[in-house]
Amino acid sequence: MSQGKVFLVGAGPGDPGLLTVRGKQLIDSADAVVYDALANMALLPAGARETGRPELYYVGKRSGDKDSVTQEEINDLLVKLAREGKRVVRLKGGDPFVFGRGSEEAQALNDSSVLFEVVPGITAGIGAATYAGIPVTHRGLSTSVTFVTGHEDPSKPRSQTNWSALAKSGGTIVLYMGTKTLKTIASTLVKEGMPSEIPAAAIQWGTHPKQRTVVATLESIAEKAEKAKLTAPVITVIGWSVVMRDELNWFEQRPLFGKRIVVTRATQQAQSLTERLRELGADVVEMPATRIARLDLAPLREAIHRLRTFDWLILTSQNAVAIFWEQLLGEGRDARALAGLKVAAVGPATAGALLEHGITVDVIPERFVAEGLLDILRARVLYGAITFDELRALFAARLHPFGEGSEPKARKRPR
Amino acid sequence: MSQGKVFLVGAGPGDPGLLTVRGKQLIDSADAVVYDALANMALLPAGARETGRPELYYVGKRSGDKDSVTQEEINDLLVKLAREGKRVVRLKGGDPFVFGRGSEEAQALNDSSVLFEVVPGITAGIGAATYAGIPVTHRGLSTSVTFVTGHEDPSKPRSQTNWSALAKSGGTIVLYMGTKTLKTIASTLVKEGMPSEIPAAAIQWGTHPKQRTVVATLESIAEKAEKAKLTAPVITVIGWSVVMRDELNWFEQRPLFGKRIVVTRATQQAQSLTERLRELGADVVEMPATRIARLDLAPLREAIHRLRTFDWLILTSQNAVAIFWEQLLGEGRDARALAGLKVAAVGPATAGALLEHGITVDVIPERFVAEGLLDILRARVLYGAITFDELRALFAARLHPFGEGSEPKARKRPR
Repeated sequence: MSQGKVFLVGAGPGDPGLLTVRGKQLIDSADAVVYDALANMALLPAGARETGRPELYYVGKRSGDKDSVTQEEINDLLVKLAREGKRVVRLKGGDPFVFGRGSEEAQALNDSSVLFEVVPGITAGIGAATYAGIPVTHRGLSTSVTFVTGHEDPSKPRSQTNWSALAKSGGTIVLYMGTKTLKTIASTLVKEGMPSEIPAAAIQWGTHPKQRTVVATLESIAEKAEKAKLTAPVITVIGWSVVMRDELNWFEQRPLFGKRIVVTRATQQAQSLTERLRELGADVVEMPATRIARLDLAPLREAIHRLRTFDWLILTSQNAVAIFWEQLLGEGRDARALAGLKVAAVGPATAGALLEHGITVDVIPERFVAEGLLDILRARVLYGAITFDELRALFAARLHPFGEGSEPKARKRPR
Repeated sequence: MSQGKVFLVGAGPGDPGLLTVRGKQLIDSADAVVYDALANMALLPAGARETGRPELYYVGKRSGDKDSVTQEEINDLLVKLAREGKRVVRLKGGDPFVFGRGSEEAQALNDSSVLFEVVPGITAGIGAATYAGIPVTHRGLSTSVTFVTGHEDPSKPRSQTNWSALAKSGGTIVLYMGTKTLKTIASTLVKEGMPSEIPAAAIQWGTHPKQRTVVATLESIAEKAEKAKLTAPVITVIGWSVVMRDELNWFEQRPLFGKRIVVTRATQQAQSLTERLRELGADVVEMPATRIARLDLAPLREAIHRLRTFDWLILTSQNAVAIFWEQLLGEGRDARALAGLKVAAVGPATAGALLEHGITVDVIPERFVAEGLLDILRARVLYGAITFDELRALFAARLHPFGEGSEPKARKRPR
């Protein structure tokens, strides 16, 4: 059994594109993934739930669940999985070492002599600020930036954070979480000498399509955020560079920002449309209205054994190519079995899929729908031994092209 | 012409795996990339230099070059390229908005009404600290972390940074650059009340295979870093969580860390070995001792036109598959032309390459070298019409398999 290893991977602040290349590689090749933010499910390999590969372990808090998994239980799980020889990804929101308790997990692994690696992630403070159009540093406005947890209540005597010193630092301050403590923190900073008119921005769901930003002054930010009903997760940026948002607010100003768009294409075919809509700012929800399903494949397999008796192979989608090829290989054949057949594709994507299997199509229509293929074949078949009406019948039955009555009879090929 | 756009992309601290997925997608599909750190050349698409796609613009400093590109010239270049309708990636080390002047470039784009997006990167302070085994925050040790530029000399009266307040913050301080100012900054922090015994670590070339870390106290770090001859780029971490390095130093403790290993495989074939060595910590330098070059392909093309006269197609590498296929398609043929041929591959990688072209091999040897193929064919050809000696002659001439005298005569296939 190979030696197990745990990878503490930062998932970034929410936008799945902000995961690192290394993090993605590790997730995609992991034996097990232990995660605690439901938002990060978008980062898991497609089909993981169905296939059980990688194994998924959810260890986050469920709302109203008092029996949440403890940190100790998480540590024990990581050690156990690694000792089983597994490559384990521990996926953590933001960066594992910025308020993430990742260093405590690393310590536990080290205590148990389990090998580990740490893959940094975009920390929420930088991600949310950037997507709100706020640079945390800017020449002339801010020469330092402090990330501080808002879980520390400054009114408590044992607060570890020296809010008085922070108030005087002169740089940008980024508060992590702490919607409840925002009011006391802001008033403490003012009391300790930070100008009350310094601009501040509270950012909810930073980098997500549903990001919301409230801008105010240090004095009024808590009240305005409360009025806007901002609830966790919230990042608050305090500092002069917040004014840059007027010029740099690229994310929220994209033409489709705030629009939720449903894409109804089948999952396998939605990707390129979805990507373009997302770049324009849309919150895209994929709700396939069609599902690509397999029919009974016995007739197809049977037809594969009689390929020599056919004249044309006509493929009407990438899915059709994938299924045909899977069955072809399953029957112990390969591309050579298509010798003597003319091959047609409904459009360039289908033709591209065929090229990936070594076949360059003989016919491709100008209109990229099945009917376009009819147009082009019409001209050809008139010279040939198969009639246009026979072909039309074939297409009418194309949901089950190898089924009863839809197969043209074997004939001599026109040459 | 479509509207141009500029993507300010954070390249991360050096390890190419720390680029974001979004950043990588944008680089790979860009029309132009403007970059300034030679180290980031590893992130550019392979072959960009040769193909000119994407266009590459180096705007960094050349050592001893007094005519370095100015910030204004960079801004103008970005605007010009975008106005030509191009998708432009502006690749910046670390994060664009953390001491990167990225916000100034974004401002210039906004002033010129050029669309832009910002893709955060792992900032050097977090990357270097993590790879040195130091969490910048840790419960009980540090509840805040401040990133500050070391370019600000605290001895100068106009320093924008309030070093006195930073000395009292109680959290971790991460200094960006500033090897020259480290001494004055450290002594200023001590003078302003920071305990002189607080641990500190200076990290050179953080996240690179040549990373070097010097650990000392705040009082002695400048002297020790100088003695160790650390020069830029250096990140210095000051704070109690530096002690965690004793337990969490995962990167520098990997078995091959500090070992530079030359991989002499041809570039196209080195990847998987290189990846495994890198995970073990090695600094891998790819120096291909063999180069896959094309010979005169006319004989191959000529043979493709006479494929029916052959019995076997024997492919001895993935490159051979790629070149054969390129020529096959170039001659207007496809996988169907292989009907009637038996196909053999030297090993599983070559067989895999064939499968990507629709062909499942008929023969694959147990020993994955050309000679292994001879073993397996020997048994077969004894029954057939081609002798083993003829096959051996074919292999002896396999660098030019379709050249004169190396081609077995066309015969009836053994069935």
